[in-house]
Amino acid sequence: MVLVRTRNPLNMGAAARAMSNFGFSRLRMVNPYKAGFREARSAVGAAAVLAAAEEYKTVADAVADCTLVVGTSAVGRRELHHSLRRLEEGARLIRRRLRSSRVALLFGSEKTGLSNSELSHCHWVLRIPTISQNISMNLGQAVAVCLFELVRQARPAPATEQAPPATSAEVERITAMLLDALRACGYLEPRGAAMAEEKVRRLVRRLNLRAGDAEVWLGMWRQIVWKLREQKETGG
Amino acid sequence: MVLVRTRNPLNMGAAARAMSNFGFSRLRMVNPYKAGFREARSAVGAAAVLAAAEEYKTVADAVADCTLVVGTSAVGRRELHHSLRRLEEGARLIRRRLRSSRVALLFGSEKTGLSNSELSHCHWVLRIPTISQNISMNLGQAVAVCLFELVRQARPAPATEQAPPATSAEVERITAMLLDALRACGYLEPRGAAMAEEKVRRLVRRLNLRAGDAEVWLGMWRQIVWKLREQKETGG
Repeated sequence: MVLVRTRNPLNMGAAARAMSNFGFSRLRMVNPYKAGFREARSAVGAAAVLAAAEEYKTVADAVADCTLVVGTSAVGRRELHHSLRRLEEGARLIRRRLRSSRVALLFGSEKTGLSNSELSHCHWVLRIPTISQNISMNLGQAVAVCLFELVRQARPAPATEQAPPATSAEVERITAMLLDALRACGYLEPRGAAMAEEKVRRLVRRLNLRAGDAEVWLGMWRQIVWKLREQKETGG
Repeated sequence: MVLVRTRNPLNMGAAARAMSNFGFSRLRMVNPYKAGFREARSAVGAAAVLAAAEEYKTVADAVADCTLVVGTSAVGRRELHHSLRRLEEGARLIRRRLRSSRVALLFGSEKTGLSNSELSHCHWVLRIPTISQNISMNLGQAVAVCLFELVRQARPAPATEQAPPATSAEVERITAMLLDALRACGYLEPRGAAMAEEKVRRLVRRLNLRAGDAEVWLGMWRQIVWKLREQKETGG
């Protein structure tokens, strides 16, 4: 990660924090605004990445040991002499290269971005797919989005903690309880009405209950049915 | 996009800016820090999104017209009662739902995140895949990463949603009815027990009710509650 002529200490801190969040550690600064850099270093959070940040005088020095140098740009304002890649595609190329060697990802100053001279050190330019009406991103957010795309899993694992589904027996016990309650409260006729029963059965199936939840629902229904019956005996 | 109890005006501004960058416009604030909200609104940049931001007193009100409510959490600090989805997978589900109805994406306060009570309005929780050594992201950066993933180009997923999902307002009405019934039949204490209430709220969210079914359930619950109350008046 190479920040070029960054001025705002909050942005330096935010960039370092996103690096820390996504597991990147090498931060290089090319001609940062001195006072801002000092201030960012003394701020709390993400201290490790900022403390270890290296300072360089030129982009050439900062990217010397990298085999791929990628610039970032909002584009729009000027003609670009580089090939432009959307972040999704660019990140794939960066990831591939990172397996064997170092890659530099350059972010320009908040006000002007990367100059043509700075961009000339880059192999190509990365574009975050913002809408055309507002292409200018906050530096810290642009860094976060790019780094996230680099660690992104193409095929994410299925949801963790997917609780096991309830068995049909459990679901049917709940259905029976519900039918009892609906008859006791007059929602359904006391007997017959097979169609209504089937409707309720399908309704309960569509809940796709999990095993643990089924137990809780069963307990609730048991109590409700007990109370409704108690009324029937005392009241009717 | 729903920001809950946000304090820092810079974060409100950053969230609004990322929304503007990625083409999102509806920002809702639940109990924002007043002075911070005023300050954020008067700052330059992303003014349109912030100017149009709506203020709400409760999470329930803010998400009432949404059919899917997704919380965000760094997790780690506490046990989570929701199923947890990585951003990559979660965004896919959100995108699919966005084709037919509204989705709320909740971000909690900078200091404490979303409370269990706030999370109980959510169907599931989104996790940005940070490294375990530093899971706490800056709010504005977390917003940017989530929104980017939502607009990210992926192979279009087939539309499989059969029936339209229930809105949060419908689901909350069912929750309220159920709570009434559980109190009336003695399953829950007459008042208090916020934890039990949250548990029930989450339980109902996990049903992933469809709009048509929600109506049927509501009718059933209304009848059951009416009967349980009748008993209370005549019997007790």
